Amino acid sequence: MTLDLSLLPDGGVPWLAASGEHADIVLSSRIRFARNVAGYAFTARARDGERLRVLSQVRDALPSVPSLAQAIVLRLDEMSVIERQLLHERHLVSKELAALDAGTEARSGAAVLVSQDAGVMINEEDHLRLQAFRSGFDLSGAFAAASRLDRELGAELPYAFHPEFGFLTSCPTNTGTGLRASVLIHLPGLVLTQEIGKVLQGLQQMGLTYRGLYGEGSEVIGNFFQISNQTTMGRAEEELTEHLARVVRRVIEQEEEARRVLLRDAGYIIEDKLWRAYGTLRHARSLPADEAMNLLSGVRLAVGLQLLSGLSVYTLNKLLIFSQTAHLSHDAGRMLTESEANLARARHIRQVLADEAGRAA
Amino acid sequence: MTLDLSLLPDGGVPWLAASGEHADIVLSSRIRFARNVAGYAFTARARDGERLRVLSQVRDALPSVPSLAQAIVLRLDEMSVIERQLLHERHLVSKELAALDAGTEARSGAAVLVSQDAGVMINEEDHLRLQAFRSGFDLSGAFAAASRLDRELGAELPYAFHPEFGFLTSCPTNTGTGLRASVLIHLPGLVLTQEIGKVLQGLQQMGLTYRGLYGEGSEVIGNFFQISNQTTMGRAEEELTEHLARVVRRVIEQEEEARRVLLRDAGYIIEDKLWRAYGTLRHARSLPADEAMNLLSGVRLAVGLQLLSGLSVYTLNKLLIFSQTAHLSHDAGRMLTESEANLARARHIRQVLADEAGRAA
Repeated sequence: MTLDLSLLPDGGVPWLAASGEHADIVLSSRIRFARNVAGYAFTARARDGERLRVLSQVRDALPSVPSLAQAIVLRLDEMSVIERQLLHERHLVSKELAALDAGTEARSGAAVLVSQDAGVMINEEDHLRLQAFRSGFDLSGAFAAASRLDRELGAELPYAFHPEFGFLTSCPTNTGTGLRASVLIHLPGLVLTQEIGKVLQGLQQMGLTYRGLYGEGSEVIGNFFQISNQTTMGRAEEELTEHLARVVRRVIEQEEEARRVLLRDAGYIIEDKLWRAYGTLRHARSLPADEAMNLLSGVRLAVGLQLLSGLSVYTLNKLLIFSQTAHLSHDAGRMLTESEANLARARHIRQVLADEAGRAA
Repeated sequence: MTLDLSLLPDGGVPWLAASGEHADIVLSSRIRFARNVAGYAFTARARDGERLRVLSQVRDALPSVPSLAQAIVLRLDEMSVIERQLLHERHLVSKELAALDAGTEARSGAAVLVSQDAGVMINEEDHLRLQAFRSGFDLSGAFAAASRLDRELGAELPYAFHPEFGFLTSCPTNTGTGLRASVLIHLPGLVLTQEIGKVLQGLQQMGLTYRGLYGEGSEVIGNFFQISNQTTMGRAEEELTEHLARVVRRVIEQEEEARRVLLRDAGYIIEDKLWRAYGTLRHARSLPADEAMNLLSGVRLAVGLQLLSGLSVYTLNKLLIFSQTAHLSHDAGRMLTESEANLARARHIRQVLADEAGRAA
């Protein structure tokens, strides 16, 4: 199968648009619900046939689920590793569903539904992982879309539910609401002023957790953090989401304050540092993934601080995602080695930035 | 006095033209003769009046010295420290003549004659330091010009000369021919392949010496070396010059070989490194002098290797000289602090490179 990305609305990543509130700091807001279909073993213990039946039950339900009316179905169990990794780079599927560890294949029945407003991972750790993304800081928008999807799908499928514990999930930490609310947030100001440690510590004290750009187990690179709730039980979904939103609003204020301090106390040092990052991205011939992420982070800050004009946050968001190895490999038609990917990444970034500079000039 | 640089033919630095043989590797060839006027104490021991008389004797002789027919006379004892430092940055006067140590003033009678082909420092360590520069590798051309000047001036002024020792000089290491032949050479290939140590050691075994961009006591920055003869006595001038020329020709071959090896064994690493240097020069907002020199060195190599087009060695040679602190201070009309100079240097280099890129596009 060749993954036709043009079939995906906005390539499946409309949340890159940098259109929402505080989009210079918050890339995206995401709500996901973990759900399982009653009558089947949890994914990890299910037989191939059970997982395939879960998938076909969801497909059969689609015509009655308005949220997924335009959805396309992507079967990971029929995809090459490049395609699976590409979907993961777009945050459309988890690392687990994409089966990215060396030598592993996606389990049969592994699939993802993608539409403009919401999507569903199928046969991930749970049978269903309903998710909705929004560009910028818009947890309530994402919550509304995910809840609507949850209601619509729940009307068609028998969810595994326990009157005392709530929604049952494969991992007990998800049991209850099955909700995870998260924001993908860019905090270079707090990193540069070395306030970040204190802020992250504060998050944990408030029952929140943070991860890297690609969720659980991923490293923090380029000053991008995923902040999310840690518990899913004992509180209502709205309450969990509003708690996260309140804390994130405070973090945004702290980041804005850090940026003001940087400009005031070290304006020309910061300006120089960020322009150098831009210069390297504009001209380097080989860019390792981590370095590219860090440089893009710097340039994203420069645009936020209005030190650098003629370059949009949208373009930078797209570069973050589209300059990753599976995207470059997909373009090349084969899996690139690390050094080939570094060359291709530098070429891609150079071209996009030169085009953008040309348009701005 | 305001130094009107436009009075100097090519700003006094026609050797930046990158027009001679092997100009991508050899910036310039220089011959100088140390001479003293009989009847006066050596400069360091001379009284003010003596030095002023030496100066006026030279000025009186000028109409009879065709090599200096177009020369302009620049009196360092009437200049600000910015102007003296600027002349030193152009290699027109030594650090000693320019009196650049903090709190010092140029000694009375300190002056320099500058014309297209040759010049004379007056009241340096010796009464007269005759010098001729050529762009690229052209020691014989420089030797011819300096010798002609020496003959013409020697016909007008009584040189201090001893039948056994030769020309007498303030420092005994210059006694004899009073000749110093040198080339200013760019050896990034030998530095990157780590062959440079061996090459420099070889020079010393052959009676040659090396220094940094600004001669005795100056650090080697940006892979620019001055290679010159160490002894001035016991051999004829031509022989000394030809010996240097032979050795330098061999060093040029070694540098060319090193560049071939670099391209063959590490082509894309080198290409990336040099383009990054270019990117930093194009976009940085603050550039310390040493860093600028090192980055310009990298870009100069890239142009030599034809990895980077649309940029001339001539432009890079000019940037090396004209982006130095006294030049930037002269433009600003006052001595810049180090951090001001770093900002001004980055601005100057950005502008020149953007203009050149615009012309090439």
